[in-house]
Amino acid sequence: MTLPNQMRALVQLHDGYANTQTGPNVDDLAPFVALRDIPVPTPGPGQAVIKVQLAAVNPSDIHFIKGEYGQPRVNGTPAGFEAVGEVVAGDTPLVGQRVSFFASASGTWAEYAMTDISGLVPCRRDLSPVDAAGQLVNPLTAIAMFDIVQQSGADSFVLNAAGSQLGKLLIALGRDHKIAPIAVVRRAEQADALRTLGAAEVIVTGEGDPMDQARAAFKKHKPRILLDAVADQFTADLFFAMPNGARWINYGKLSTDAPKLAQMGQLIFQGKQIEGFWLTRWMKEVDPARIPQAFATIQERFVTADWVTDVAGIVPLSEAMTKLPQVLAQPDGKAFIDPTA
Amino acid sequence: MTLPNQMRALVQLHDGYANTQTGPNVDDLAPFVALRDIPVPTPGPGQAVIKVQLAAVNPSDIHFIKGEYGQPRVNGTPAGFEAVGEVVAGDTPLVGQRVSFFASASGTWAEYAMTDISGLVPCRRDLSPVDAAGQLVNPLTAIAMFDIVQQSGADSFVLNAAGSQLGKLLIALGRDHKIAPIAVVRRAEQADALRTLGAAEVIVTGEGDPMDQARAAFKKHKPRILLDAVADQFTADLFFAMPNGARWINYGKLSTDAPKLAQMGQLIFQGKQIEGFWLTRWMKEVDPARIPQAFATIQERFVTADWVTDVAGIVPLSEAMTKLPQVLAQPDGKAFIDPTA
Repeated sequence: MTLPNQMRALVQLHDGYANTQTGPNVDDLAPFVALRDIPVPTPGPGQAVIKVQLAAVNPSDIHFIKGEYGQPRVNGTPAGFEAVGEVVAGDTPLVGQRVSFFASASGTWAEYAMTDISGLVPCRRDLSPVDAAGQLVNPLTAIAMFDIVQQSGADSFVLNAAGSQLGKLLIALGRDHKIAPIAVVRRAEQADALRTLGAAEVIVTGEGDPMDQARAAFKKHKPRILLDAVADQFTADLFFAMPNGARWINYGKLSTDAPKLAQMGQLIFQGKQIEGFWLTRWMKEVDPARIPQAFATIQERFVTADWVTDVAGIVPLSEAMTKLPQVLAQPDGKAFIDPTA
Repeated sequence: MTLPNQMRALVQLHDGYANTQTGPNVDDLAPFVALRDIPVPTPGPGQAVIKVQLAAVNPSDIHFIKGEYGQPRVNGTPAGFEAVGEVVAGDTPLVGQRVSFFASASGTWAEYAMTDISGLVPCRRDLSPVDAAGQLVNPLTAIAMFDIVQQSGADSFVLNAAGSQLGKLLIALGRDHKIAPIAVVRRAEQADALRTLGAAEVIVTGEGDPMDQARAAFKKHKPRILLDAVADQFTADLFFAMPNGARWINYGKLSTDAPKLAQMGQLIFQGKQIEGFWLTRWMKEVDPARIPQAFATIQERFVTADWVTDVAGIVPLSEAMTKLPQVLAQPDGKAFIDPTA
């Protein structure tokens, strides 16, 4: 297959980090990325080029283009971490096949992306494009963090931002493994849907006294793990209301609060601890056999509808600069970029 | 040996917890304890009574009498966690021998104390009374936390309240095992003595820009463990200035600050974590063989002067109500109560 020389891509406009903490929202992409024609990437040893069919947009992508993610930006290179597409170049038997991937070498918000061959995930034929485009970041994070929940021996866990895609994946895992999910959300409208999905309790932070709701839920279910995408003061208060041995595992920063630790003594006397989760580190540290197992589980769960991808909208690459912020502003569901449209 | 029926003791005046956080200082003992004559405790199965020769006063004792420690007070019972004395009753071959102990059943600020036989630590003849009276809480904590430092593989560690007894024990361990101690103190007068003792760097929090000092020290020594007895905002700032993988291990609360976590992203991307250390939990979880090994090390270190107990003062039990606060107010050195005087 002969590749074109040029491709269209959303390229970053900055290098490095911004030293801001403004969260994963964006009203206007223009300060951060621009639609440009740039050269199609050329694979080095161990790398593959993928013709992107559909790219996902995750909170980490927005953190990244704003310079608020754990790796530096490179001016002039495409943004976008994950996608599904067809392998079109590289020294791999997967050439010609459909794969999901995390772009380590050239981003996915582009007609072509590039990554390490070792990171290509072949897709079942019956896996839908949206499920395939988003099967790495959220689903693998859900599987990895739920492994932590199961290894802790807990009968229950707490998660916030529970109406997010990742939150819904975690609730479904809790439901299916009989580990009671205690879901924390901001908006009362989300509560019924999450209860139907499998949340044992739903705490609405804007309603009544949410700490009273939390204390009642914690007394009943004794959750030991808090999976936290928010990191605000309410999260810290939840942590200190949890039983002995609780672990606060932070994996996102939806809030710009700097939470205060008002009860440090609980770390000493109740054996509580505060840690972070990063999928990139987990993938380096986990038993390598766990990763293909996890992708088999992920694809099976999507195909059988144990998991469902809620789509907020699919935006053509050529219109992403104007349309993506509107789609991202929708409270539920996931945004995608289609470079073929 | 026939025991008297009555004994003199400093007994607690409250039950349970106070829900205050005022730190381990005390100007006046009268709100918390009183000198009284009470019955000598009677050992149950597995318990021993010890005639107290010298009792230690630790920060945890002051937290405890104020209702700010991790276990509830019992009105009318003696205060005091650790001491040295002679075993005078109980089903143990140690009757008649000198032991150090942590009082689990009746406190040490008394003529007689009671504890579990399994917790009696026989003392070498050449171990001095002050070293014997204080060989559990601080020295065993130092050994236990230094085990964590060594197991982490770090070449350096940070400790605050470094002029405390425990701080000095930790610095000497670092010196002897060539793991560079970075000592944080409040007063510049302490710096030279700690350098002489073996601190690789001394950061004085009240001088110049202590964060600049810290950053320079961290760049040079790459410490991975922060042993924290203070838990103020400066401690949090230190933690966020430490290298990737740093662990903030809190074991005390000298400050009444609620430190803010301004850089939660470091938990995610740099694998940092925040945890607590409690000797009581460590003793339950550690390989039981480690504990007698640790006491052999502790006694050897004191006898050979690798460790030195700095004595602020020894107060007779009968005068403790008035004299103990003055001795505790001295910035360096340890206070003791002598129930035989």
